[in-house]
Amino acid sequence: MLYKKRTHTCGELRALHIGQSITLTGWVDTRRDLGGVIFIDVRDRYGKTQVVFNPQNHEAIHALAKELRTEFVISVSGTVEKRPAGTENAKLLTGEIDVLADGLTILNKAETTPFPIEDKLDTNEDLRLKYRYLDLRRAPMQQNLLLRHKMYQITRRYFDEHNFIEVETPILMKSTPEGARDFLVPSRINPGKFYALPQSPQTYKQILMVAGYDRYFQIVKCFRDEDLRADRQLEFTQIDVEMSFVDEIDIQTIVEGLMQRFMKEIKGIDVITPFPRLTYKEAIEGYGSDKPDLRFDLKFSDFSAMVKDSGFKVFADNVKKGGVVAGFTVPGGASYTRNQMDNLVEFTKSLGVGGLAYIKLTEKGIETAIEKFLGAELCKNICDIAGAKTGDLVLIISDAWQKAYTTLGVLRLEMAKRLNLIDDNKWNLHWVVDFPMFDYSEEEKRHVAMHHPFTSPKPEDAHLLDTDATKARARAYDLVMNGNEIAGGSIRIYDSALQSKVFGLLGIGPEEAKMKFGFMLDAFRFGAPPHGGIAFGLDRMAMLFAGVKSIRDVIAFPKTASGISLMDENPSEVDKKQLDELHIKLK
Amino acid sequence: MLYKKRTHTCGELRALHIGQSITLTGWVDTRRDLGGVIFIDVRDRYGKTQVVFNPQNHEAIHALAKELRTEFVISVSGTVEKRPAGTENAKLLTGEIDVLADGLTILNKAETTPFPIEDKLDTNEDLRLKYRYLDLRRAPMQQNLLLRHKMYQITRRYFDEHNFIEVETPILMKSTPEGARDFLVPSRINPGKFYALPQSPQTYKQILMVAGYDRYFQIVKCFRDEDLRADRQLEFTQIDVEMSFVDEIDIQTIVEGLMQRFMKEIKGIDVITPFPRLTYKEAIEGYGSDKPDLRFDLKFSDFSAMVKDSGFKVFADNVKKGGVVAGFTVPGGASYTRNQMDNLVEFTKSLGVGGLAYIKLTEKGIETAIEKFLGAELCKNICDIAGAKTGDLVLIISDAWQKAYTTLGVLRLEMAKRLNLIDDNKWNLHWVVDFPMFDYSEEEKRHVAMHHPFTSPKPEDAHLLDTDATKARARAYDLVMNGNEIAGGSIRIYDSALQSKVFGLLGIGPEEAKMKFGFMLDAFRFGAPPHGGIAFGLDRMAMLFAGVKSIRDVIAFPKTASGISLMDENPSEVDKKQLDELHIKLK
Repeated sequence: MLYKKRTHTCGELRALHIGQSITLTGWVDTRRDLGGVIFIDVRDRYGKTQVVFNPQNHEAIHALAKELRTEFVISVSGTVEKRPAGTENAKLLTGEIDVLADGLTILNKAETTPFPIEDKLDTNEDLRLKYRYLDLRRAPMQQNLLLRHKMYQITRRYFDEHNFIEVETPILMKSTPEGARDFLVPSRINPGKFYALPQSPQTYKQILMVAGYDRYFQIVKCFRDEDLRADRQLEFTQIDVEMSFVDEIDIQTIVEGLMQRFMKEIKGIDVITPFPRLTYKEAIEGYGSDKPDLRFDLKFSDFSAMVKDSGFKVFADNVKKGGVVAGFTVPGGASYTRNQMDNLVEFTKSLGVGGLAYIKLTEKGIETAIEKFLGAELCKNICDIAGAKTGDLVLIISDAWQKAYTTLGVLRLEMAKRLNLIDDNKWNLHWVVDFPMFDYSEEEKRHVAMHHPFTSPKPEDAHLLDTDATKARARAYDLVMNGNEIAGGSIRIYDSALQSKVFGLLGIGPEEAKMKFGFMLDAFRFGAPPHGGIAFGLDRMAMLFAGVKSIRDVIAFPKTASGISLMDENPSEVDKKQLDELHIKLK
Repeated sequence: MLYKKRTHTCGELRALHIGQSITLTGWVDTRRDLGGVIFIDVRDRYGKTQVVFNPQNHEAIHALAKELRTEFVISVSGTVEKRPAGTENAKLLTGEIDVLADGLTILNKAETTPFPIEDKLDTNEDLRLKYRYLDLRRAPMQQNLLLRHKMYQITRRYFDEHNFIEVETPILMKSTPEGARDFLVPSRINPGKFYALPQSPQTYKQILMVAGYDRYFQIVKCFRDEDLRADRQLEFTQIDVEMSFVDEIDIQTIVEGLMQRFMKEIKGIDVITPFPRLTYKEAIEGYGSDKPDLRFDLKFSDFSAMVKDSGFKVFADNVKKGGVVAGFTVPGGASYTRNQMDNLVEFTKSLGVGGLAYIKLTEKGIETAIEKFLGAELCKNICDIAGAKTGDLVLIISDAWQKAYTTLGVLRLEMAKRLNLIDDNKWNLHWVVDFPMFDYSEEEKRHVAMHHPFTSPKPEDAHLLDTDATKARARAYDLVMNGNEIAGGSIRIYDSALQSKVFGLLGIGPEEAKMKFGFMLDAFRFGAPPHGGIAFGLDRMAMLFAGVKSIRDVIAFPKTASGISLMDENPSEVDKKQLDELHIKLK
């Protein structure tokens, strides 16, 4: 079909263009027929422009314009005019002008769309996903994808400026499931054998350090066959970084520079570096989370020492067993009704602890059911240590260390929500460092790596690997933004013997280690440099920058929680012939 | 391990640093012990620097340096000195200075490497691939990966500057095998169903145009489960581009701008745009290839009309059946011996044609076996038309159109090699346009798409779809560099009805079309803009720019011709438990 190509985009025309003959191409966004004169807004990625079809100006074109409906694709020509005084549209950048049409080609028609192409859309997400090409026409979705585009460019420019090399690592790699499940890809040429999709390019980027590449980065797709949660996708995007001859500070400094750019170029905010650092222990004991949201305070106090020898057996016994009694102050919480307090106790119990103790500090003094066990003075001391003032409420949990603090952590977030303490315009960035090397998995009856099996212990804790491995701290660090882990990394092991020892602690015997990671152990024997790195979850970071609640809103073609793409209906059944060629059959 | 971090890289020190105390980190590249004084070159990604261990300067450090062997990883400190006159090394950028060591830490030892880390390496490729981390330490491999890095950055900067949006499309998509085989990924959550890895993001990028994104690009991994040839990999990298409201020229102009940048920034060469355009017909009839190498001439002439009514039945009958008699001049070829000519005839026959006719134009006139059939005058006319001068040789093939020209095409390349006509420093870029829509596959007894099923016919040929589809030309174009297709694209169909018709011609019935591409046909009903695009094979382009013969030399971790990664040994066998979870079993 022949048509006039655009001279300008739909977001471009201003008063300075008045009098010019121009052509626009795009979609009919809105259409109004006002007593013979037809007004349409024509829309493209760059904006909207009002076009006027006046029969007195051009009768045939006006007649053709009558056929226009929403989402028709058109090429429209005309003269740029100043809008009559009082009809300017301040909401549009092109709102000073309109275009008096003298040419029109309908490039494609459109059926009525299953939902309107509007910024605020009240339709179920499945319908949006099925007609993703319509959903993606909406301005908020375009802004989200443009944000991602900007993040990609900022990232690559930054690392390029800092002498990093972008290297593509394979998507078809070796299956070495450790933690999450691998996606497998049957090999046609090698019957009975399978490739796996990378959960991360971890081994490749370490190999690149052994190969002397010194500074590597990549924006890369990774894959985990996990049961999906709201903010997870089967495939996700990682900013992947690795450096040689560095320590934690070198890597953190590079990352802080990138975050400064993101904040400046995306949010217009200057952030100060270095970011604060909390140890894992400080984060858990202060905020009940290894990714605490520090946009608000509600910091915990530890009452264990105070109550250890008290007459309150529940508290005292727990402390003697090695547990903790800790809590935090809820400002203004003394005014909570009986009902509100019962509700809070129920919420806390639902988290799996025995109960919630509390002390109200009112004008009349302390009000608490535990006074009869602890005595008034101890209760007052607790309030003092917790920094409670008259009118405040102190919440107290007594349980094992991990359980007590993680419960307090959830309670802290819940109270921040209820008290509206979180300022959405605030951006908090900090590091959590000194993670433990291992978690002990009761389920699997073995140590599991807190970060991953390639993480180096802190030199001063290395001896603990032989005696009390769960006490050993790792050279691992997470970057936390507004209570979300957005990046995690570590200084790696680069010594074959130490790597074998850590594999052993993880229950990966010499045979299995050789089969899965033999090439890395080999590589370490030929001159591996000290190295470390980090990986960012780009999707989640984009979600936070975009201020949206779902990761699917910052991914062009996401999958549902069941791993299904509703638009093109995949996964799908395939021909038996295809399976035959791959030497597999359905169970 | 504690060690001094580098103050400079190994490529950085110059005369201006003389007298400074510095620290380098890197690998021991070479080591010479000259009567008590030890010289090493320490190497990193940035260069090499000579370090001197003199026992008179520092005895303990000199003693430690005795332990150093090739590829040990070290941190070495010392003072930058001017090299004694006459010992400068002009080959090194750091060749004016050396470093007198006063500190040394051995960060890691290295066993003897299975091959030396040298630029020119004479070892078999499998060994290089198994120890890729060593192979990648060699300067030529580092240069190749740095070249790729540069290509990525140039590409993204260019498209970003031109308002293209980078969008990530899914790697887990729908299986729609058409042409090549899909790699399949069994779904655990959806038993019996499979994802496929993309052969290209073709449908997604078209959907993005329907969604109004106007200008899209992505550097993206694509996958084809084909039997591998030397220059193919199971996974490969594509620069993927799509634009709306454009015609061929718009896309070609954008591409030419990118190629100009590549040539300038990588090769330092200014290329002139627009690039020449050949139609498919001109390319085949002129050079016997749809990707002719135009760095040399050897253009064909068509003798069909001249010989059609001649007494040489072989020629005449072939032309009457619709075949062609054509050939080209080999400069200086008249001096070829009988033996050389026999060899050439054999080579030609091995290409599957009946034979090779030829005319030598010597000082004595024409010398040819076909004179007795054609007569001297006709032979002379053939030489005239072929532009042959005394001393030249005219090679002639008589066969069906396709066979005659493709054979001549191979012969043309062969003669160019034998005559050394190809200048490796010459860069030739041109377009081939107006490809046929379809090839008729005798094997499958159906039309197959020459480009892909989404390619639009030329408007003036659209009627041929109903009458003689193989005659219809497509709005398709290839970019050819030095005889290699480096990019291919087309203006797409954006009309549901036309798309269905083309599917029909390809033997994809309404049912199958709906199942495989229903979402695209649907999308076209809601306002699809005119659009088109192109995709570059990045690996092959990198190979050409790097001047290497194998695509594996520009890929960090390539697979062998059997699809195997020798370093980490994949594909590999997996646990039965993994297969069980995926609801599949081995056949």
